Amino acid sequence: MTANDPSPNHLQLTRDGQLRHFLTLDGLDRELLTDILDTADSFIEVGERRIKKVPLLRGRTVVNLFFESSTRTRSTFELAAKRLSADVLNLDISTSSTSKGESLSDTLLNLEAMASDMFVVRHSQSGAQHFIAESVTPGVAIINAGDGRHAHPTQAMLDMLTIRQHKGGFEGLKVAIVGDILHSRVARSQIRALNELGAAEVRAIAPATLLPTDVESLGCTVEYDMARGMKDLDVVMMLRLQKERMEGALLPSEREFYRLYGLNQEKLALAKPDCIVMHPGPINRGVEIESAVADGPQSVILNQVTNGIAIRMAVMSMAMSGQTAERQQKLSDTGEAAQ
Amino acid sequence: MTANDPSPNHLQLTRDGQLRHFLTLDGLDRELLTDILDTADSFIEVGERRIKKVPLLRGRTVVNLFFESSTRTRSTFELAAKRLSADVLNLDISTSSTSKGESLSDTLLNLEAMASDMFVVRHSQSGAQHFIAESVTPGVAIINAGDGRHAHPTQAMLDMLTIRQHKGGFEGLKVAIVGDILHSRVARSQIRALNELGAAEVRAIAPATLLPTDVESLGCTVEYDMARGMKDLDVVMMLRLQKERMEGALLPSEREFYRLYGLNQEKLALAKPDCIVMHPGPINRGVEIESAVADGPQSVILNQVTNGIAIRMAVMSMAMSGQTAERQQKLSDTGEAAQ
Amino acid sequence: MTANDPSPNHLQLTRDGQLRHFLTLDGLDRELLTDILDTADSFIEVGERRIKKVPLLRGRTVVNLFFESSTRTRSTFELAAKRLSADVLNLDISTSSTSKGESLSDTLLNLEAMASDMFVVRHSQSGAQHFIAESVTPGVAIINAGDGRHAHPTQAMLDMLTIRQHKGGFEGLKVAIVGDILHSRVARSQIRALNELGAAEVRAIAPATLLPTDVESLGCTVEYDMARGMKDLDVVMMLRLQKERMEGALLPSEREFYRLYGLNQEKLALAKPDCIVMHPGPINRGVEIESAVADGPQSVILNQVTNGIAIRMAVMSMAMSGQTAERQQKLSDTGEAAQ
Repeated sequence: MTANDPSPNHLQLTRDGQLRHFLTLDGLDRELLTDILDTADSFIEVGERRIKKVPLLRGRTVVNLFFESSTRTRSTFELAAKRLSADVLNLDISTSSTSKGESLSDTLLNLEAMASDMFVVRHSQSGAQHFIAESVTPGVAIINAGDGRHAHPTQAMLDMLTIRQHKGGFEGLKVAIVGDILHSRVARSQIRALNELGAAEVRAIAPATLLPTDVESLGCTVEYDMARGMKDLDVVMMLRLQKERMEGALLPSEREFYRLYGLNQEKLALAKPDCIVMHPGPINRGVEIESAVADGPQSVILNQVTNGIAIRMAVMSMAMSGQTAERQQKLSDTGEAAQ
Repeated sequence: MTANDPSPNHLQLTRDGQLRHFLTLDGLDRELLTDILDTADSFIEVGERRIKKVPLLRGRTVVNLFFESSTRTRSTFELAAKRLSADVLNLDISTSSTSKGESLSDTLLNLEAMASDMFVVRHSQSGAQHFIAESVTPGVAIINAGDGRHAHPTQAMLDMLTIRQHKGGFEGLKVAIVGDILHSRVARSQIRALNELGAAEVRAIAPATLLPTDVESLGCTVEYDMARGMKDLDVVMMLRLQKERMEGALLPSEREFYRLYGLNQEKLALAKPDCIVMHPGPINRGVEIESAVADGPQSVILNQVTNGIAIRMAVMSMAMSGQTAERQQKLSDTGEAAQ
Repeated sequence: MTANDPSPNHLQLTRDGQLRHFLTLDGLDRELLTDILDTADSFIEVGERRIKKVPLLRGRTVVNLFFESSTRTRSTFELAAKRLSADVLNLDISTSSTSKGESLSDTLLNLEAMASDMFVVRHSQSGAQHFIAESVTPGVAIINAGDGRHAHPTQAMLDMLTIRQHKGGFEGLKVAIVGDILHSRVARSQIRALNELGAAEVRAIAPATLLPTDVESLGCTVEYDMARGMKDLDVVMMLRLQKERMEGALLPSEREFYRLYGLNQEKLALAKPDCIVMHPGPINRGVEIESAVADGPQSVILNQVTNGIAIRMAVMSMAMSGQTAERQQKLSDTGEAAQ
């Protein structure tokens, strides 16, 4: 969300404050974020890297509506929907003829009319999901699976779940986010969520050229030197280097970046001994992170992947539940009005 | 069906007159058409644009066998099969290597042997579905999802369902079909179904160049002037302009066509005040229909889409049921013969 | 498996001798092979070419992980998984961006972390499945869906099932394998399985140029002349001619091959009158086999296809069951150790 965007909460929350679409973390308070984490946790089998199959979306149809391809993201949403017992339809609009000569709006109206209950939407244009949520028929939930900057709000939430699982909570935690914060939408969401959930300090570690000018207003401290930045950390979250954004800019080379901000064992040793290491994947080994760290005992990178399924299940089931509650509320209102 | 085709009813009906394949509307009588409409209606949740999930095809495997790609059509059949609780396998033969060096017949024999119960077939050659239905193993149902002219008989049936929902029935109705009737297979099916179901008048509205020479033998009146044609209408069904067929022919330009036969508010006002507006989608806004009409209160275009799912569910479940009845009948005959 | 490969049994069997991965027939004894056949048989509806739907993998996620495309093979595994009530995710890595810049190992770790229970793997490199089975998290089963030579061990097993169904067993059977034995991995598996299951004679019928130099050590007799080779046969198994391997080699032309080793009615008449004819498909009519034979009363080619679904269901459900047993054993061991 840029500063110009209106609060999306009239869109993504019901009158009672339940989730009905999942578009952004902006505006979601600690209670709702905690609800999402609790719901996700309930899907994970205790002590195992396995996810329960539950009937929460049985009889519902989820359409994966991808206006740009992303096999990885689509697969995690498809798996999540199937774990919820939904029927899933994959539509890769970028390669299909569905939308030929048809406006986004007409494509959506048609898909809605096919008795779909939820659209998981990926679109290259920032804000497309908001537009869709505004125009969609009541009862149909929209889940943001990534827009312009290739980030999605489920990413920040799976990070929160992973931290809570390993640290028990957020109180007193010192968490660093390392890398290209300027171009990362997920970094902004992470900073917001960590503050809302009560972390003691969120630290941005990056060169000045990869920090937004308003970085401190985001709710974090800034550290240009990684060695200093690692001190006392409970959690270090690496960002993925978006090579396509670095090119041509007055930015450090990949090699130089790795020397200064790459995470290796030497730098990790400067953090607390039980500091956990996170990365959104896929890993560029030797670019942002050393293999010995990525595969080491402090890495929770694969837990993030598993938690990604659980978080997607949580937001999908909560949004569907919110839509249903709202629908019944409206029917009830209408019933009373008619009397 | 051309005049040379034999009656397909020995193919698509059982001895008892139940549906066992769904290939064409030709030869289906009012009772069977009404059964299809009633069955489809039973899948729609009262007062909502939602479709029930039912177990009618539980344990059955439906193969979407598309010899030419059509994401839109394939999606509606996939959704319909899943609402019936079937397992669905999508095979896009046009892009796969399945049929490499293999005849259509061998491909089918192999797919049948994979324990499939139903093939939803789209093929560019007219009559391919009849050929397949003739050669398929007893017990396996064939559903026509479109052939040479890009029309499929489920389209005409979803139109009938939409009319019945809005008008209560067909008795006394005056219905117009507007546009390129010459190249439209669906128009012929619509005319036949409307007559069979008891409509008072079916009116073809088109320039002479877009009418078949035998148009009046189809069971409709003809009107070249749209203003006159709109008079007293209960239902106006727009056809999609198939641009690829118009090119190079002595036909009106797109612009000229729209001026003469496009549906706008002004022309619609000449029909009955409660006249409903139908279009098979996707809409060419400003070519066949004005946005104000397509999105207006008399438009039932999106109902048609929802009804498309219900109609596909109806023909799939009825054909499967017919196959099962026939199979049991044969086992019973054999048992009696053996005694 | 080449002679250098270590026994894979530490990989594919549990301590108790249950299947936990299905990688190769090598090292599987008569008892286990018979278990697979019995399990497969239990899925087939008596007297029909139909397969039951069973809940053995309900709540489990099967990922079809295809590093090279094969719609035919993928479809049979997808159907088998769905008949077992599993959730299925198809990943065609060859055409997707999933693995972009990611190692096979990282791709796998990520997919495992997505709470998958089974990978059905096709990979162009021989041995890839062994590598994956070695590195995969305990509890996750690997099924070989074909490697370098485009053969998969499920093929040999579906052949065994087909023979047993038609001949009642293997004792006393004379079985010939005809064609390019040199380049066929499935031929080696077939020879091994037939010997293990007790066939009286396995006969390789081929020109010297299409036989491995160590052919007799495989456990078969050799016959260069097809007329002599057909004598007294109960089963004749044709191999597919792999045209791409024939080109440029000092091998007979397609026409010459067909004259010498193609199966026609005349040659088939030299075998026992109830000799069955098998072919892995897709058939090259007139290259390895005459249409009159392929479609004739002695052909069981389509039964092989149906049995392919049942065999895949058998190895998938048995491997999952072995993984679960081993997991519980380990939990129990750990529990005892902790006391």
